[in-house]
Amino acid sequence: MRIDILTVVPELLESPLNESILKRARQKGLVEIVVHNIRDYTTDKHRQVDDYPFGGEAGMVMKIEPIFQIIEKLKSEREYDEVIYTSPDGKTYNQQEANYLSTLGNIIILCGHYKGIDHRIREHLITREISIGDYVLTGGELAAAVLTDSIVRIIPGAIGDEASALTDSFQDNLLAPPVYTRPAEFNGWRVPDVLLSGNFAEIARWQEEQAYDRTQRLRPDLLE
Amino acid sequence: MRIDILTVVPELLESPLNESILKRARQKGLVEIVVHNIRDYTTDKHRQVDDYPFGGEAGMVMKIEPIFQIIEKLKSEREYDEVIYTSPDGKTYNQQEANYLSTLGNIIILCGHYKGIDHRIREHLITREISIGDYVLTGGELAAAVLTDSIVRIIPGAIGDEASALTDSFQDNLLAPPVYTRPAEFNGWRVPDVLLSGNFAEIARWQEEQAYDRTQRLRPDLLE
Repeated sequence: MRIDILTVVPELLESPLNESILKRARQKGLVEIVVHNIRDYTTDKHRQVDDYPFGGEAGMVMKIEPIFQIIEKLKSEREYDEVIYTSPDGKTYNQQEANYLSTLGNIIILCGHYKGIDHRIREHLITREISIGDYVLTGGELAAAVLTDSIVRIIPGAIGDEASALTDSFQDNLLAPPVYTRPAEFNGWRVPDVLLSGNFAEIARWQEEQAYDRTQRLRPDLLE
Repeated sequence: MRIDILTVVPELLESPLNESILKRARQKGLVEIVVHNIRDYTTDKHRQVDDYPFGGEAGMVMKIEPIFQIIEKLKSEREYDEVIYTSPDGKTYNQQEANYLSTLGNIIILCGHYKGIDHRIREHLITREISIGDYVLTGGELAAAVLTDSIVRIIPGAIGDEASALTDSFQDNLLAPPVYTRPAEFNGWRVPDVLLSGNFAEIARWQEEQAYDRTQRLRPDLLE
């Protein structure tokens, strides 16, 4: 899989894309992640990536030309399955969407910044708009990092322990059951007896009940 | 405001917390962000932060002792309004929650990693569990970066143009209207005439209509 990320703040993505599971997945050759600085595709002498909006609103708007240039160049080099724009008014991201994206070959993720991007980019160049949640961020860079992390970690081979990923929250529409580790007692707080019992059938039953109870109590919408 | 972030992968947070608006807000003294390596609070010679779960599930669990030590130490130094844990089964984060958190004095954000944290931490030390969305990440670090970014950018003075923040998506339960910038025509794609008209009353009306239409079409749930 190849992920091209287009941004005006490439520095911001440096550490999230180069640590932990993403780092190992890149080293293993499971994913190639290329960060492009949109400013490198400007043609004016001030290398301007934003401009005032038509109609006199507050805030600056990302210009269409450099983004058009970079997307055209990438598309001339290979086929892309999706050109994604991260935006608070996109489709709300979830684990099903992560599963879908992880099956693709090549994707582009365009990070918005400032007040947003020229709407013609969204109408003519973007194939998928995704929101990671109902809140506003400084830019789309953290959203791109969230997409990349959630996609790459479920590519087969990316995490050492694949059974662990299968029991994650949301993969079966249930929240995960509580987990505990040693010591069995700390500060007077004890681990539930069943987990210390060694009775694996009972433990499995307890975990299922807990997953269901927690989902019903905390996120009943997932059971609908 | 002061934000203490507790993590086993402090490197991952380096670039997101030191660029753009967060960097400027820190330089202006609007927010102090301190990242703590949980491993520094271990007392065993292997500096172990995780261990196998009781009950024999897949995955590793973050141990209670070092997290207890660091939270106790921080609480002995100052009052905290909230001790937040980022987790997919927390309360779904949104702009109202960001607004609330931005009014606080001191908060702690604990980042989960591996299969999760010993549940006793959640029962006894955490005051608020927040999920940034219905998807699973490698760890809570990106979620902590998302919280921090969304909180800090709405602290008065953090962004230069506060009128811009007021017209962001979600602040009035409406998605933002489309924005455009120069050139008025590119590749045969034109900016809507009304925005070039110079008639500001008409432009404002068009923007309101667009915001409402887009919300009704893309996110009708926000209007309920």
